[in-house]
Amino acid sequence: MQILPAALESLIEALGNLPGVGSRTAERYAYFLVRRDPAKSQQIAQALSDLHKNVKYCPKTFTLIDAESDVSELYSDPRRDRTIVAVVAEPLDIVALEKIGSFRGTYHVLGGLVSPIDSVTPEQLHITELIKRIDEDNVVEIIFATNASVEGESTALYIQQQIGDRPLKITRLARGLPIGVDLEYADQITLSRALDGRQTL
Amino acid sequence: MQILPAALESLIEALGNLPGVGSRTAERYAYFLVRRDPAKSQQIAQALSDLHKNVKYCPKTFTLIDAESDVSELYSDPRRDRTIVAVVAEPLDIVALEKIGSFRGTYHVLGGLVSPIDSVTPEQLHITELIKRIDEDNVVEIIFATNASVEGESTALYIQQQIGDRPLKITRLARGLPIGVDLEYADQITLSRALDGRQTL
Repeated sequence: MQILPAALESLIEALGNLPGVGSRTAERYAYFLVRRDPAKSQQIAQALSDLHKNVKYCPKTFTLIDAESDVSELYSDPRRDRTIVAVVAEPLDIVALEKIGSFRGTYHVLGGLVSPIDSVTPEQLHITELIKRIDEDNVVEIIFATNASVEGESTALYIQQQIGDRPLKITRLARGLPIGVDLEYADQITLSRALDGRQTL
Repeated sequence: MQILPAALESLIEALGNLPGVGSRTAERYAYFLVRRDPAKSQQIAQALSDLHKNVKYCPKTFTLIDAESDVSELYSDPRRDRTIVAVVAEPLDIVALEKIGSFRGTYHVLGGLVSPIDSVTPEQLHITELIKRIDEDNVVEIIFATNASVEGESTALYIQQQIGDRPLKITRLARGLPIGVDLEYADQITLSRALDGRQTL
């Protein structure tokens, strides 16, 4: 016997496709929406319908931009320094870095990290385009702002090889103790990296 | 400066309306969808658009039913006993009870619980309709299957007063130790209720 109406079941099933959303959470979302103003559901429906047709990848930085834009504002803005490029894995990483508010360079989104386990090869990432930008924009510094993981490290290593002997500074985000964390609770690898990267006071 | 495209920002804002979804979770959902097949987003959009027009409340039990149905199958099915009515707060409570698979009575959804703090008065709940069902269907037992909370208890008490001296059995779900829980970790109120409701072996 069918307990919930078909339309509610369809919505629960559709919402179950979202990352980390199981059937209980999907049920909660759907039931919340069915009790609210239909306009709220329509607003989400509209935003979903418009999503893909109004979004594209920037051909320079490979971040997401409005479909009618040519390149990302983070690249076209004359106040941004194109000779400094922060290399990130995903567009959302840019959101995190821009929140600091002090970085004045530009970004380059790889579209992932090299990961044999997920069969992501360097050819699938925007590495060729990064090398091209290095040459065209006379880049003086590449900052690897990738996760402090095996994938992050090996992707950085691969790109470093591709850059070869071009005369530019290659840096990466510092590894060390997160602010506000007790030393006694820090894991061994983080602590070991913090010791290796110790700075003169 | 705009970091994410407007269409993505709109979707993040719209998804932020879902219960328990903050901006980080909404960002994750939106970014997940933008990278997936547009058909997936369209499927969710369609389910949301169709939701309200294909769902309505059953005029007898007040659960959610297909818009083209007359009454809930849980009421119209001749195998269900209309003289036994489980009173629940919300339609999703029925889903939980039906999972047991052994209840053969019917349901009545109140549409909430009496709660002065949320300004929910008895008049806003489907209590008059419940009394009407009691008289029309010659109900012999009402089972209060509401939360074991102050609101659940006081709603049951109010309905009991409305039922007055009609000759029917009024019961509620047993309170006691949940299965699989260690006695030493049970809270005092639960333990006290379990003691009060102790059963002869």
